[in-house]
Order: sequence, then C-alpha cells, then structure tokens
Amino acid sequence: MKYITPKGTRDLFPEEKILKNYLVDTLKTVFETYGFNPIETPSLEMYKTCTAKFSAGEGTDVLDELFTLKDRAERILGLRYELTFPFARFIANNPQIPKPFKRYQIDRVWRNGPIKLGRYREFWQADADIVGNEKIEADAEILAMTNKIFKELDLEVVIKINSRKLLDEILKFCKVPKESRNSVTIIIDKLDKIGKKGVKEELKKRDIKEKTSEKILNLIEIEDIKKLEKELGKSAENGIKELKELFRLLKNFNVKNYEFSPSLARGLIYYTGTIFEVYLKGSKIKSSVAAGGRWDDMIAKFGGNEKVPAVGISFGLDVLIDALNLKLKKKEMKKSIVDIFIIPINELEKSIEIAEKLREKGIKTDIDLSGKNISKNLSYADSFEIPYVLIVGSKDLKNEKVTLKNMKTGKEEKIPVKKISKVLR
Amino acid sequence: MKYITPKGTRDLFPEEKILKNYLVDTLKTVFETYGFNPIETPSLEMYKTCTAKFSAGEGTDVLDELFTLKDRAERILGLRYELTFPFARFIANNPQIPKPFKRYQIDRVWRNGPIKLGRYREFWQADADIVGNEKIEADAEILAMTNKIFKELDLEVVIKINSRKLLDEILKFCKVPKESRNSVTIIIDKLDKIGKKGVKEELKKRDIKEKTSEKILNLIEIEDIKKLEKELGKSAENGIKELKELFRLLKNFNVKNYEFSPSLARGLIYYTGTIFEVYLKGSKIKSSVAAGGRWDDMIAKFGGNEKVPAVGISFGLDVLIDALNLKLKKKEMKKSIVDIFIIPINELEKSIEIAEKLREKGIKTDIDLSGKNISKNLSYADSFEIPYVLIVGSKDLKNEKVTLKNMKTGKEEKIPVKKISKVLR
Repeated sequence: MKYITPKGTRDLFPEEKILKNYLVDTLKTVFETYGFNPIETPSLEMYKTCTAKFSAGEGTDVLDELFTLKDRAERILGLRYELTFPFARFIANNPQIPKPFKRYQIDRVWRNGPIKLGRYREFWQADADIVGNEKIEADAEILAMTNKIFKELDLEVVIKINSRKLLDEILKFCKVPKESRNSVTIIIDKLDKIGKKGVKEELKKRDIKEKTSEKILNLIEIEDIKKLEKELGKSAENGIKELKELFRLLKNFNVKNYEFSPSLARGLIYYTGTIFEVYLKGSKIKSSVAAGGRWDDMIAKFGGNEKVPAVGISFGLDVLIDALNLKLKKKEMKKSIVDIFIIPINELEKSIEIAEKLREKGIKTDIDLSGKNISKNLSYADSFEIPYVLIVGSKDLKNEKVTLKNMKTGKEEKIPVKKISKVLR
Repeated sequence: MKYITPKGTRDLFPEEKILKNYLVDTLKTVFETYGFNPIETPSLEMYKTCTAKFSAGEGTDVLDELFTLKDRAERILGLRYELTFPFARFIANNPQIPKPFKRYQIDRVWRNGPIKLGRYREFWQADADIVGNEKIEADAEILAMTNKIFKELDLEVVIKINSRKLLDEILKFCKVPKESRNSVTIIIDKLDKIGKKGVKEELKKRDIKEKTSEKILNLIEIEDIKKLEKELGKSAENGIKELKELFRLLKNFNVKNYEFSPSLARGLIYYTGTIFEVYLKGSKIKSSVAAGGRWDDMIAKFGGNEKVPAVGISFGLDVLIDALNLKLKKKEMKKSIVDIFIIPINELEKSIEIAEKLREKGIKTDIDLSGKNISKNLSYADSFEIPYVLIVGSKDLKNEKVTLKNMKTGKEEKIPVKKISKVLR
C-alpha cells in the first residue's frame, strides 16, 4: 500500500462500522431514556483550554500526548484528549443553563501516545455527566444508567465502587500528611499493576514509612464496609456514610452487580468523591470498559463564578467493540446493511420501479445497475451476505410475478409483484 | 469568557444537536434504504495522502487551508479537508472489496480558511458514493437518493445537472486547445460570482480570444438540450448522449425537480463526467446544499492497479441545519429530549421505581434527585420545555395514584400508577 493510515488510526469496514453504529445507538438510546441531552463540542480546543484543569506539575502525561497544531493566525490549538474538560469549559461558558444539566457526547478523542494492542491514537469515548447536583442520588443514577447499558448490550459486568473521600480518610487515619495524600492515592491506583511490593517501594520514595504503608494496604483490603467502618472508628466520616447511602440507593435503582472496592483509586487527580470502574465478567478483556466518578472541582477552573458539582462516566467505544466482537460469533455479524438485492434480467425499468417501492417502505434495497449476468450477481450478493435476492425477468413479469431467493436456504419462490414488501416482512 | 472555542468552531447546545441528530438520522436512513453501507476513515491522514489527488500546480487553495500536525515520530499528518480522498485511499488500499461498492460516511472535516457567515473551520459532510460502476445508471441512482433525502427533510430543492464531458465538447467545438480546457472550465465555474464580463476578462488572461469567449458563453446559456445538440452538430458526442440517457433514467426513478444547466462547471478539477449541485427553492440560503459528480480518475492516483470509476454526492450538514432552522418555527424545535419529568414529594423511593419502569418502556424520563421544591421543579421542567410532569406525593400514592401535568395546557389529572406508561402513549 502506497498510502497507509497514520500510526494508531484505522479504517472501519462496513462490518465493523455496522457493529459500532449498533453500540452508539444503544448508548444514545439509554442515555436519552435517562434524561441526558446531546451536545457537541468541537474536536479542536485552544491550547490553554487543554491545560486549564491541571495545577502546576500535574497532567504532564496527558499533555505530553497532546496533538497540537496552529490555525492561520498562529494560535496554538490542541485535539481534545477526552470529553470531560471541553464539557467543563462549556458549562463555565454558559452559566445560564438551568441546573442540574445532564448531557451526553459520543465522539472522537486523540492522544499522541505509544501504541499497544487495542490502543489507538484516535479513539472514541461516550460520556454522560450530571452537573449541578451535589447529592449522592446523582451518582446512583449514573450507575443505574451504566448498569442498563450493559444489560442492553448483553455484556455481563461488575461495577467496582469506592470513594476518594474514604481513601482520604483512610490516609488521614494512617497519619499521611494532607499534602501527600493525592500522590499516595495515585500510587495506590497502581496496586493491580505493580503489586503490594511495588506500591510499598513507591510509597517509600515519598517518605511513607513501611509501617504506614502496611497499615494502608491492610485497610484497603477490607471489602466489608461495616468492618472497615469499625476499623476506622471515628475517622470514618463522610466517605463511608456516602457510600452506604449510595449502596442503599442502588437497591432502589435495582442495581446489584457492584462491589465495594476500597483499593480502587483511579489514576486521575480530579476526582473528589465517588469513583467507579466497570469490568467485564469472564472475558479475555481485563481492562476497564467504562469508568468515572465525581469531579466537583474542575468546572471552577474554567472561570465560572461558582463551584459546579459534577458526576459522570466515560465508556471506551473501542474496547466495547472488541468485547462485542468476542461475544458475537462471526456468523452473527452483518457484512452489509442491505436486506434485498434486485437482479434485473433485461427488465431494468420495472426493476428500478420495484426497488423504489421497497425503499419507500423502508426496506434496505440494492439493485444491479451495472448489467452483470445472473450468476455474477448471485455471487456478488453472496459476498456481502445479503439475505434475499429478487430476480426480475420478463417471463415472470408476464404473470405479474418475480422470483424471491432466500440466500441462506437457497429456496426460491415466485411471488406476486404487489406482495413483495409483505412477504419480506 | 476566559476559555473560548477556537475561531471557526462552535459548541452545539441540546436544541441544535437534537436537530443535527434528526438530520444525520434522516441521511443515514435514506443512504441505507438505497443500499449504501457505512464505513469510517480516520480524521487524520498522512500529509502525502492529503496531497495525492492533485497533479503538480493543482489544489493549492485546499492545501493552503490544510491543518497539519506531527505525531510523536515527527511524521507529518493532516486533518482531512473532505471525505472523498480518504475514501479513494480506502478503495485503493482494499482491492479485495467486491464492486460495485456503495458507501456513506457522515463525519467532520477541517479547513484552516478565512471565516465568513455560515463557514466554519471544523464542519460536517455526509458523502455517499458508488465505486466500480462506470454506467450512467449509477449517476441516476445517486440523484434519486438525493431527491429522496430532500423529500424526507421536507425541503424543496432544484438539482442542477451538467456534464464535464459536454463542457469539454463545447470547448473543443470552440477550438479551445485540450491543455487549456481544464483551467477554462474552472473559470466558467465562477460565472455566477463574477458575471460574464469577469469570465471574459479571466479567459483573456488565459489567451482565449474575445470571440471564442462570446461563443462559449452563448452556448452554455442554451438550457434546451436538443437545441444545444443541434448547435454543436457532430461535436456533440458522449456528453449530450449520456445526459439524455440520464434524464430518461431519472424518469424511471421518478425524479422531476432537476434542471439541465450547461453553465454549471463545479470548481473541483477531479470531475470526469456528470456534475450536479442542489439548491434550495425560495430560500434565503443561496449557496448549494449538496454537490457531486463523477470522479473516475482519482482512485488510480492512490496506487490501485486499475482505474476504478466513481460517482457520488456530498451534503453540507451545517448549511442544511441552517435551512432546517429557517423552515422550522422556533416553537417546533425541541429544547430537550425528555418526555416526562418526575417530581417526588417526599417519595423518592417510589419515584425512582416509577422512573425506572418508564425508562424500561423506552420513555425518556428525568427525575428530580436534588430535592427542589415543587415550584422550582415546575419552572425547571418549563425551562427545558419538557411536555409532561409527573408529581408523586404520599396522598395520591395512598390511592395508588399520581398527578400528571400537561405542561403546554396546564391540565392536571390523577392517574393510576399502573397506567402511567399507557396514558403517556
């Protein structure tokens, strides 16, 4: 190939795009039944908007991977690396929008990072967030909606839930000084990757004593919330209280497939309360397929006058497509959206008329307009796995009939022209 | 605002995105009923792919407006400025795809150009093309599909049709040398903008004699195809013949709202046969809303082994949204996708249960989870123009009832909890 796609990008063939459209439609439908409205922000943002959510020294990983470019007036722009910060900007820019405001956006993001299997430089996310509601009920609704999406996709998942407030309280209980707690949290997030030993080593570099590290690691292993509450005693303040309230609400929302995971930390600095990650059950895919939490402090960084609380979730479309691919058998995947392919045998005019009538009824109809012979046409329809073929020939037409062929069974039947769309239903 | 969107880009509010989604869904549905399959190509292409369709000296306008950027290995990339050349690359890269192949793509494109009213640097196009069918029947099908789209959108349009072959024959008839014909065609395209005088002046610069210019301008004014055929005599070869065949086919496809426009030239160099532009009838919007034609020579430039004929059309989503905005009264535009807003009066648990049941039935349901009082909730629902409100209070619940309020009429009625979704239908 002389002209390849850029590294970390790819083309989607009809088969793949049909599956992606199914995923996008499912997300869209569930988001909307939960009262989330669509908005669209541009893919390009000013460079300073791309960096605004970070305090000094933070965010270097993401900003190292920012695709930057210039407009004709030499202004520096960036391709957004997520859908959250553009939404924060949108909310700060539009204080007139009544709150709570629930929005979703399903769109591309870009990161100029190293490429691994399943990681792209141009990829898609689907975000749903509620801004302007600080109550834990909003967190519960996000999780209920998440649960519904996986039900609709027929993917079995477990939602791991924790709270940054609780983690902070655990660290306070272990006498980690306030200014170190954020960085310690980021280290705890690596537990699955680097293990207890690795975490201890990294904590040591941050001047956390071995004994303190032990204590932290022991506490975040306690997955029984009441037991953890007992251990923490009076130090268990809002974190535990909120989580217990959340779990109670999840019962009302009929969400059962969650786990309290006190070791869950989420790498991103900006979470302020509940955090959650969604994992597939019994799948080869071990990375999370959706993740989110509460991010009450970000919008104010974009110049709004007041603090606007926010909670939401982000779904990774590329990993979800991989998951659907694994679940579906190859046979179930559609190679084409076409329902029926019409083969005219010297009867182009009549064939076009029939095609237009089927299209009028919403039947996805293709027709040979290139004058191929019948056997070439049949193998063409077969190569796209089109389920039905309609053969329109003069002999049949004399009796006001056409021949319908079921391409799976090979069965042919003569049907009256007038009844084609009825038969197809 | 501290953080603005980049020049030439914009945010879409729910009201605008809901309308855009309606437009995208309509395009998608009609494309698919005509047997076009979805594909997706990345927004980023290698710089050399962005320039491949041009011969030396061509395309400078578009390439001057190319947004360029670098990946981490310093490879130069471009943001695509249209959906056609990436599709040509896709087809050249994948010769195994059975032909004809019909695809659509509805997606973003970028041009780092000057900003005028209604022109953006980031905008959307919807392209549908047929590759691998050189016959005029394919051109007719593209036009039939185009016609259907505007019917579905309830926008009255006229499709102006011409042929590059015919223009070439006219120029040949006027003794314009072969090597000048392309550039003369590009000048003719400016007729509407710069008038006859302007065209003559520009042609003079290209060493076309005044008399020749007169002759050309007189011929392309003849909108009666038979008359033009007579004028051209033996010089009228394939151009006229093909157009007459196309108009005959359009009758079969029941397309009536077209005009033969021999002065239509299309600015782009790569068209090889039929060309067309779609204009709104009786609208303030004077620019074309869709345009296309036959582009038989481009795919070979991307390194395919053989010439692959192609014909297609591109719809401008931004101008179509403007057109729909003008047509719709403000009142008809939806501010929110929400069908019903639930207000719990100290009955959160039961309200959540009802919300979840309505969502299960696909009813787009929102619920107050922030504990506002009833009057604040009513004005909130009103600000988003949500059509129905459901008030869930203890008193009503004792009788297994809730209060449904029609927000347009103000009418309230008590309905049994079990019948809510039935009543809403």
